[in-house]
Amino acid sequence: MNSAAIAQESVPLNDDSADLSSRLQTVENRLRALEERLSSASEPTREQRVSLVVMSGDLDRVLAAFVIATGAAAMGFQVSMFFTFWGLSALRQTRQLKGKRWLEKAFSLLTPAGVDNLKLSKLHFAGLGKMLLEKQMRDQQISSLHELVQLARDLGVRFVACQMSMDVMGIRAGELIPGVETGGVATFLADAAKSQVTLFI
Amino acid sequence: MNSAAIAQESVPLNDDSADLSSRLQTVENRLRALEERLSSASEPTREQRVSLVVMSGDLDRVLAAFVIATGAAAMGFQVSMFFTFWGLSALRQTRQLKGKRWLEKAFSLLTPAGVDNLKLSKLHFAGLGKMLLEKQMRDQQISSLHELVQLARDLGVRFVACQMSMDVMGIRAGELIPGVETGGVATFLADAAKSQVTLFI
Amino acid sequence: MNSAAIAQESVPLNDDSADLSSRLQTVENRLRALEERLSSASEPTREQRVSLVVMSGDLDRVLAAFVIATGAAAMGFQVSMFFTFWGLSALRQTRQLKGKRWLEKAFSLLTPAGVDNLKLSKLHFAGLGKMLLEKQMRDQQISSLHELVQLARDLGVRFVACQMSMDVMGIRAGELIPGVETGGVATFLADAAKSQVTLFI
Repeated sequence: MNSAAIAQESVPLNDDSADLSSRLQTVENRLRALEERLSSASEPTREQRVSLVVMSGDLDRVLAAFVIATGAAAMGFQVSMFFTFWGLSALRQTRQLKGKRWLEKAFSLLTPAGVDNLKLSKLHFAGLGKMLLEKQMRDQQISSLHELVQLARDLGVRFVACQMSMDVMGIRAGELIPGVETGGVATFLADAAKSQVTLFI
Repeated sequence: MNSAAIAQESVPLNDDSADLSSRLQTVENRLRALEERLSSASEPTREQRVSLVVMSGDLDRVLAAFVIATGAAAMGFQVSMFFTFWGLSALRQTRQLKGKRWLEKAFSLLTPAGVDNLKLSKLHFAGLGKMLLEKQMRDQQISSLHELVQLARDLGVRFVACQMSMDVMGIRAGELIPGVETGGVATFLADAAKSQVTLFI
Repeated sequence: MNSAAIAQESVPLNDDSADLSSRLQTVENRLRALEERLSSASEPTREQRVSLVVMSGDLDRVLAAFVIATGAAAMGFQVSMFFTFWGLSALRQTRQLKGKRWLEKAFSLLTPAGVDNLKLSKLHFAGLGKMLLEKQMRDQQISSLHELVQLARDLGVRFVACQMSMDVMGIRAGELIPGVETGGVATFLADAAKSQVTLFI
């Protein structure tokens, strides 16, 4: 309004025109800045992420976790697996008793050490159900849990062991397979908050 | 700057004015394009989605899955249910043994066929807990699992049976209720990545 | 085009300039509006949310739920916990039998009342596993479930008890700890649809 009013006064022509041109130049610059900003915004660079809590130590559920994790990683998702409580059994490669207090020893002996020792949540039948499942998987040429864990590592899946659970169950870092980080609930939530898919298994 | 400098030179007036007007016209067009783009962006047309993995075959958990699925569908969410391992029992309508290998027969006989045969995860008491639950549900006029499955189908909930689990457990497509697709982990992840709510049940 | 064409006609100079200035003024106003709008959009005020379904009544899983809930609340997330079926046991503070029908009494007696009475999903051993776990948690100075529930309430975590489950299990509002809302699946989904992290525990 103000500018328009001024323009209608009999100001010298060239000054007037120069003023308009300069304002227009400013407008053009601001517009270009906006366009550039929107152009980057319209191609969301938001990463695709899957974050899993693996609390179960049941063979079938751990298997499901790794099928989802490796499938997602193969599709290009960034995948984080957060192992807690019984789920830690899937990350153990040895059972260490030396240097543990009696309570820690008890937990150690009562929980499975490693993927080979996990049990089915149903139909266990003293190991028969598990044998049937594993035979069927081989017959159908489906990757074993061992192979899936290795595949997950090769695909860059992030393995985090819950430090609090390790403390409670008396599990030492040295008992876990290599390449496992330790972390707390904040580690999980930081990844989960950026994820499209979050599951508690 | 450059234009402004030119404008200050003693170019013929009308040309100068025409040049400004033409630049302004371009600016107006670009601005309108930006405004239109922002106006569509500010009304997100992103669909509302819920994706569920149903791995459990326990009556109570399958019931929870269908309560969530039908509730979400009734609220206007697109809902996908991905049935895997024991969860497939909820989709079976018959038990077929003919033409199966012995291992497949064993799995077939050891897993429940259909929603009527699912058991509670707790308080089963040889079926007594289940009877109590179902009586209570009838008394409280809560839909049975049978009715919820039918309602989910009527509301357009997508049912996907995990092909890998079917192979492992020797379940044939003909044993499932009609209208069930088969798919892999990629089928689940494609839906889940677009979902606000993802649950593993 | 049209304006530019008009501008090239031999219209009086001042009018022409005034017209350009007025158009430019409009453009400047629209541009400012766009810039302001984008500036607020680029600082997403979208709240950070975590929504949990707690269906399990197992001590270990309820513990995991409260570790995640309190951790998230401490990090600034809005947290909602939706308790259903066996999960309601964690919210009970008393067991009330008077005025209940026999079926409701049966459920009441068969399900644990309160966090002190929850059992481990594994290694229960008639309470021994639980004793070991709780001793280990004290030794490691990890908050007990009692403390975590209190902490969650202090941090403003929203507790919702599933009304349908209460009806089925014959649980009265008076049996629950104070500060618990009742709601349905729609209550959960409304919070969950706004959440970055959704888990079924």
